[in-house]
Amino acid sequence: MFHIGIDVGGTGIKVGVIDDSLNIISEKSIPTCTSIPFPEQVERIAGCVLSAAEGAGLTRDRIASVGVGIPGIANLATGEIIKCTNMGWFHVPFREEFRKHLDVPLFIDDAANVAALAERVAGVSAGTASSVFITIGTGIGSGIIVNGKIWNGFHGIGGEIGHVILDLDGVPCSCGNHGCLERYCSATALIRMAREAVAENQNTLIMKMVSNDITKIEARTVIDAAKENDPVASEVYSRYIDCLAQAVGSIVNLIDPEVIVIGGGVSKAGSFLLDPIRREFRKYVLYSDQPLPEIKLAVLGSEAGIIGAAMLS
Amino acid sequence: MFHIGIDVGGTGIKVGVIDDSLNIISEKSIPTCTSIPFPEQVERIAGCVLSAAEGAGLTRDRIASVGVGIPGIANLATGEIIKCTNMGWFHVPFREEFRKHLDVPLFIDDAANVAALAERVAGVSAGTASSVFITIGTGIGSGIIVNGKIWNGFHGIGGEIGHVILDLDGVPCSCGNHGCLERYCSATALIRMAREAVAENQNTLIMKMVSNDITKIEARTVIDAAKENDPVASEVYSRYIDCLAQAVGSIVNLIDPEVIVIGGGVSKAGSFLLDPIRREFRKYVLYSDQPLPEIKLAVLGSEAGIIGAAMLS
Repeated sequence: MFHIGIDVGGTGIKVGVIDDSLNIISEKSIPTCTSIPFPEQVERIAGCVLSAAEGAGLTRDRIASVGVGIPGIANLATGEIIKCTNMGWFHVPFREEFRKHLDVPLFIDDAANVAALAERVAGVSAGTASSVFITIGTGIGSGIIVNGKIWNGFHGIGGEIGHVILDLDGVPCSCGNHGCLERYCSATALIRMAREAVAENQNTLIMKMVSNDITKIEARTVIDAAKENDPVASEVYSRYIDCLAQAVGSIVNLIDPEVIVIGGGVSKAGSFLLDPIRREFRKYVLYSDQPLPEIKLAVLGSEAGIIGAAMLS
Repeated sequence: MFHIGIDVGGTGIKVGVIDDSLNIISEKSIPTCTSIPFPEQVERIAGCVLSAAEGAGLTRDRIASVGVGIPGIANLATGEIIKCTNMGWFHVPFREEFRKHLDVPLFIDDAANVAALAERVAGVSAGTASSVFITIGTGIGSGIIVNGKIWNGFHGIGGEIGHVILDLDGVPCSCGNHGCLERYCSATALIRMAREAVAENQNTLIMKMVSNDITKIEARTVIDAAKENDPVASEVYSRYIDCLAQAVGSIVNLIDPEVIVIGGGVSKAGSFLLDPIRREFRKYVLYSDQPLPEIKLAVLGSEAGIIGAAMLS
């Protein structure tokens, strides 16, 4: 029996068939299309699933389950997608609609939870008792794993560390509040900090790298300039690392998982991100003289969405 | 068979015998004494346990287990108390020493975890799948319960919400960091906020209530003055409630338990605390249009320490 994972993204929907060794043995994708009615969207997705199954030489009766990772929340019991803004899905009966095309057990969860599960079953946190996964991109996503299972709360709205308050009355957030953690720890936050610093001091490698156009500053720009020891970039990056270390320290004080896994675009900085975080988070841990969680980088990259979704149950 | 709970406090050590209906059927206490050697301290505690058992007419063979709640952390596997500053205990072999006097299964956990468990088995969160207990006193203690069990992390250092960062670069904390949640949500925080407000404006009922001696301001003073609609006290209390609402909202975004239980001295304000928190925390929840955790006041009071300790396993 095989499991199929669906990774619903802003630009494309990827589908993969997973074998018992957690390898993707067949993969298909379709562009995301939000302009057609919901039933047609689901029909396209189901078609892509059947095409991926065919690519692996599977008949329908050999598909054990299908899992879907979405940037949003779902009611795990009913299979209703409650909110998935990118797709324009609000209170849509995804499972019911999907089963008109393929009647197999279907599971849905948040993309960050799915990636957390993928790392737990086939990645850097494989076999651990508990882990917290943080994905650092435009925003901050996160997933909590306890005893090998996704913990998304009693009402399905937990695991959203990006909107834990890190700074009372701080920077406004798109959610409507102020001082949310993702305003200080995301790639967007790093870019904001760099723009603020550059506004004060334009004599920096950052400005050379973007040809004096501050709208072109990316997270990578700041990281690359900091690697070159540019003073402005180094100061911005130190501050960013300090914010992230406070976030990691807070996770330890509250949840204390066996492992904390960092993924997402910013994690491509590799040891330039990991080394200072490992060094700095300890000072924000209350019982810092005790054994502490390991901090590791995610290893599955873009495959995490498919593998984790396929492993939902 | 009966369970015995020990509540180790700063001024006294209370011991209680619990029957199957979770009632305390015999209770003894001794004053805390930190000036004698550790083995003698344990001997006194074991003597108090035997005296409480005798008070309930129990022979030793009818004691199923003994549990200890301490203001500190322990290694649950070895029974070593790692740190209990009030008692001067640092890396002491409590279980080993205790068993010289009474050889029964002995469990140790943090006082806030113990109180969380007590509310879960015999209090306001009885029967719930998951809960977070917050005790608001001089500091902030907390305990997380998942599937009826205390979650204190993989390394035993979790559940310390008081030291989650709530305000980057904020008020200095006794732990050495800045901006810890307990600096904004404890009774001590409410007193600090009141003193700051009074320094700006002395025309307030608060000053009358303390005969113009700001060192006499207590949490109760501010709450009582706010109940009388004193403008300065009301503004301070609103700000305090807002901080607490942000803390509660953050717990929901991250953990989303079935119930959040508030205990400790400040919770004696009753509905004057509960009503505004229930109203205000929602605006800090990302998915605030979904079903949300219930917020409730603890009901067990000072008995929680004994009942929860007795229920450790």
